[in-house]
Amino acid sequence: MNANVAGQVPRYIRVDKADNVAIVVNDLGLPSGTRFACGLELCEPVPQGHKVALVDIAKGAPVRRYNVIIGHANEPLRAGSWVHEGLLSMPEAPALHRIPAATRARWNEPALEGYTFEGYRNPDGSVGTRNVLAITTTVQCVAGVVDHAVQRIRSELLPRFANVDDAIGLEHIYGCGVAIDAHDADIPIRTLRNISLNPNFGGGLMVVGLGCEKLQPERLLPPGMLAARKASSGDFGVDFVRLQDEPHVGFEAMIAAIMAAATKHLARLNARRRETCPAAALVVGMQCGGSDAFSGVTANPALGFASDLLVRTGATVMFSEITEVRDGIDQLTSRAVDGDVAQALIDELAWYDRYLERGGVDRSANTTPGNRKGGLANIVEKAMGSIVKSGTAPIAGVVRLGERASRKGLLFAATPASDFVCGTLQLAAGMNLHIFTTGRGTPYGLAGCPVIKVATRSDLARRWHDLIDLDAGRIATGEASIEQVGWDLFHTMLEVASGRRKTWTERWGLKNSLALFNPAPIT
Amino acid sequence: MNANVAGQVPRYIRVDKADNVAIVVNDLGLPSGTRFACGLELCEPVPQGHKVALVDIAKGAPVRRYNVIIGHANEPLRAGSWVHEGLLSMPEAPALHRIPAATRARWNEPALEGYTFEGYRNPDGSVGTRNVLAITTTVQCVAGVVDHAVQRIRSELLPRFANVDDAIGLEHIYGCGVAIDAHDADIPIRTLRNISLNPNFGGGLMVVGLGCEKLQPERLLPPGMLAARKASSGDFGVDFVRLQDEPHVGFEAMIAAIMAAATKHLARLNARRRETCPAAALVVGMQCGGSDAFSGVTANPALGFASDLLVRTGATVMFSEITEVRDGIDQLTSRAVDGDVAQALIDELAWYDRYLERGGVDRSANTTPGNRKGGLANIVEKAMGSIVKSGTAPIAGVVRLGERASRKGLLFAATPASDFVCGTLQLAAGMNLHIFTTGRGTPYGLAGCPVIKVATRSDLARRWHDLIDLDAGRIATGEASIEQVGWDLFHTMLEVASGRRKTWTERWGLKNSLALFNPAPIT
Repeated sequence: MNANVAGQVPRYIRVDKADNVAIVVNDLGLPSGTRFACGLELCEPVPQGHKVALVDIAKGAPVRRYNVIIGHANEPLRAGSWVHEGLLSMPEAPALHRIPAATRARWNEPALEGYTFEGYRNPDGSVGTRNVLAITTTVQCVAGVVDHAVQRIRSELLPRFANVDDAIGLEHIYGCGVAIDAHDADIPIRTLRNISLNPNFGGGLMVVGLGCEKLQPERLLPPGMLAARKASSGDFGVDFVRLQDEPHVGFEAMIAAIMAAATKHLARLNARRRETCPAAALVVGMQCGGSDAFSGVTANPALGFASDLLVRTGATVMFSEITEVRDGIDQLTSRAVDGDVAQALIDELAWYDRYLERGGVDRSANTTPGNRKGGLANIVEKAMGSIVKSGTAPIAGVVRLGERASRKGLLFAATPASDFVCGTLQLAAGMNLHIFTTGRGTPYGLAGCPVIKVATRSDLARRWHDLIDLDAGRIATGEASIEQVGWDLFHTMLEVASGRRKTWTERWGLKNSLALFNPAPIT
Repeated sequence: MNANVAGQVPRYIRVDKADNVAIVVNDLGLPSGTRFACGLELCEPVPQGHKVALVDIAKGAPVRRYNVIIGHANEPLRAGSWVHEGLLSMPEAPALHRIPAATRARWNEPALEGYTFEGYRNPDGSVGTRNVLAITTTVQCVAGVVDHAVQRIRSELLPRFANVDDAIGLEHIYGCGVAIDAHDADIPIRTLRNISLNPNFGGGLMVVGLGCEKLQPERLLPPGMLAARKASSGDFGVDFVRLQDEPHVGFEAMIAAIMAAATKHLARLNARRRETCPAAALVVGMQCGGSDAFSGVTANPALGFASDLLVRTGATVMFSEITEVRDGIDQLTSRAVDGDVAQALIDELAWYDRYLERGGVDRSANTTPGNRKGGLANIVEKAMGSIVKSGTAPIAGVVRLGERASRKGLLFAATPASDFVCGTLQLAAGMNLHIFTTGRGTPYGLAGCPVIKVATRSDLARRWHDLIDLDAGRIATGEASIEQVGWDLFHTMLEVASGRRKTWTERWGLKNSLALFNPAPIT
């Protein structure tokens, strides 16, 4: 009876008292014969993060975690046995009709006053956490030239503008060779438009285009929007450089034109100063990637607690990842503030159901080998662990794919679950701070926005000591409570937003590409 | 009657004697009243590259260019009037059944002997024109780390390995968050696999993965392929670095592992030397982008002539761009060497018809504002100008989306027409030299393969003097024949392939991203 492995007390975590499975916490898993404090004895080895049956479960009986049926037993499961993916049949996705709307929308948490951060105020009322020159591109064709120019801007111009954090090109593989009049084409176009308007880019617009591309600047940034922006507060510094324009004789003339426009924008950005802003000005995008079974019991619950704190300050907090909430749709619609928001949730998920169906797959295509290795049996179990990061606040609104968030509170920003596509769409939604929880580990970072990386396990936080910003694994080991880690994360957010602390991906300069979601055909 | 503008004799080009329209050649277009040598007089101004009616055309009558009906007149068109896009109704796409197969497959051009270039021979028989370390990535998550490592490899390692041209990361936005078991998922996966095996990368494999991603290295590079490669000629240097693997403690350990693997591969690549190889070892990818009405009368016909020369040397030449050949399908099937190749052409185009239909569009979504501004009325006219770059040789085979070319001669490599997606798929097909014709101008370049840029107009060649490698506009002005420019291009290819001449995009380091074609859903 090896009840104590490498000095560790054997531990499991049961999320809800109705659950008939729990996950093993100990770093190296536990061997057969291990006896827990409650008296349960393992009848086979169970790896870390994987599920153990707490009671005998009959063939066909429901297996519950998060008080949700994550599957039905394919065979009788003994108490103390390892409940792995092969032993479960996944339930159908919940229907999208006759589900509760706004039945749990009441929330009586008091407002949190007095929390602030130092940010860059923009003319449109948004606030940046960084001060970045972002060069919008209309089409991939110009990417090589823009990249060349950005390198020169960094080496030759940035040293003269010490208040500017970085200069980046908003490169993407859209803009031409695409069915730009297809019904769904507005998704990638508005995504690019809204990324250009991200609060961290200071409200100016510098665009490099080719000339003959389908995505003309006027289409990317509608005249109405440009006119309104100009009318509201004078010259915002909207500049276009079109490489095919006559005056550019030779490559160096193109580079010179870009450098000249950049100099003007850098001077404008450089004059800005951080000011004390209420925490309500934060627009936090939440995401998880490389998830394991700990995601749903350590990092995501702590993030959920911090999300509630943010909502109580009046901030905007977004959770996303459609295929990871699909199985909990009724939990979300019941938390919607009203029937319209519930319907908007249903509309987005129904659209995605049809999108997947067109491609011959369903939401079960979400889970990865790493998820399963980490103990997540299927998308239902993964979904429950993912949703928990939305905390307990009512859902105040839905941000459609590629649109910009227009209200405060907890929002569902509709995005695929792909880390890089989700991050891209949250940038478009106006995110000025990104929180990313990870179980297996990912070095993911963004050029436009700081990414705070939270580990679900202390082992990962130790190994990736210079990539992980916060260790939520302390919850599993009993060193800290969900509330403690949640407050820790909340304070970390204010520090990072204020620029007083750099995230690890910022320090190493790790920047993932923009990855546009384009459900329309290319040509 | 201003018959002479700025000292230029007014000129038009009629492609086929059956045509009832021709295009105006003069740089600034021609004013109303201009009289051509043949007696035709313009009854309105016609811009450069745009069409003039050579005879009166009745309402509803066919308008012919390349001896093909590019549309029917919406109203009576007077001789000497400007035939612009608004005056034409586009014909239906040709059906994909009951079309001629292999009726024009005979070709009696003699073999061309004795042409060679200096290339890097690979163990699999392919030949590189450049000597590049390419680091394959399984997933976007690792891109930031690989980019960081590549910068260090360039600055710290490359100077020690003078025979290696460059080190690059094969970054992409695939690998996770995708429906990897969807039917069409094999297209992006085999594309990545085959790009890794491009002849310019020297036959080794260095892969950086995360660990938990859907696209596991074993799936990206099937064990069968790896085993066969190992068995055939010993250690090819297949190296995997997985960032989540236990031994990597901290970011710098990850970078160190990548640097160590890179050092080994650089040493192997550095030992290679250029050898004299027959021109037959060239695998040339042809493409046009930013097309205008001159594409089909200057650059593309010259490229077609050069393509025939290449085929006569025994080389592989690929033309592509499905939506740009769709309207000439019968011309292609009739040139297929046999019924199987004709059927393969039809299969690829039918697949793409369905793909577009699923997205609610058709091949007419291809044309761009720049095309129309440049005088191309619609996709039919554009298609005829595009197909002409395939010359007159029989079509020896079809390369399916993302597959590698496996035979010599003129091949149709199925790709979308998007410049960056087409280039990416041609890299996968094994392209070691890229020829790109452009009318409106694009700075497009590739990291993995030299791109020879050919201008359709001398005006562009003059303005973009340090981006355009060859001026085919001389054909329009009468300074050179199609044959002369074709031979010039052929010799330029051998020079560039041998490394004796760098292309302009190489000199400036202009590199467009890989843009994978993924018709399957993301999750």
